[in-house]
Amino acid sequence: MATVQFTVEGMSCGHCVASVEKALTGIGASGKVDLSTKQVEVTFPEGSLTKEKIVEVIEEQGYEVVS
Amino acid sequence: MATVQFTVEGMSCGHCVASVEKALTGIGASGKVDLSTKQVEVTFPEGSLTKEKIVEVIEEQGYEVVS
Repeated sequence: MATVQFTVEGMSCGHCVASVEKALTGIGASGKVDLSTKQVEVTFPEGSLTKEKIVEVIEEQGYEVVS
Repeated sequence: MATVQFTVEGMSCGHCVASVEKALTGIGASGKVDLSTKQVEVTFPEGSLTKEKIVEVIEEQGYEVVS
């Protein structure tokens, strides 16, 4: 498994957390969101996803990946 | 139609707006939420609902009706 960490702006509540986590599940990853620190930790099978693809699905939910 | 206005704390994003509006639809009312002013305007057929019932369904979504 590979793990990457992102800082994501714009998530404000549990619904936002759920929408990001669900979107990540949809591409075969699993996400753990810390709302207070804006950190999203994404785990996925090594080689199955690019960082760009992960950023894309998070941003499709309406949030901004800032780092 | 009757209209009542509430101030509701805790709604932070479009998902919150949608959950409140959907809950109101579920009891035969319609709701209009202004996130910036925390105002929820609820319209329903005269005599079909009590104010208490409306407060109950909003609070069931996890928000606090403060006035």
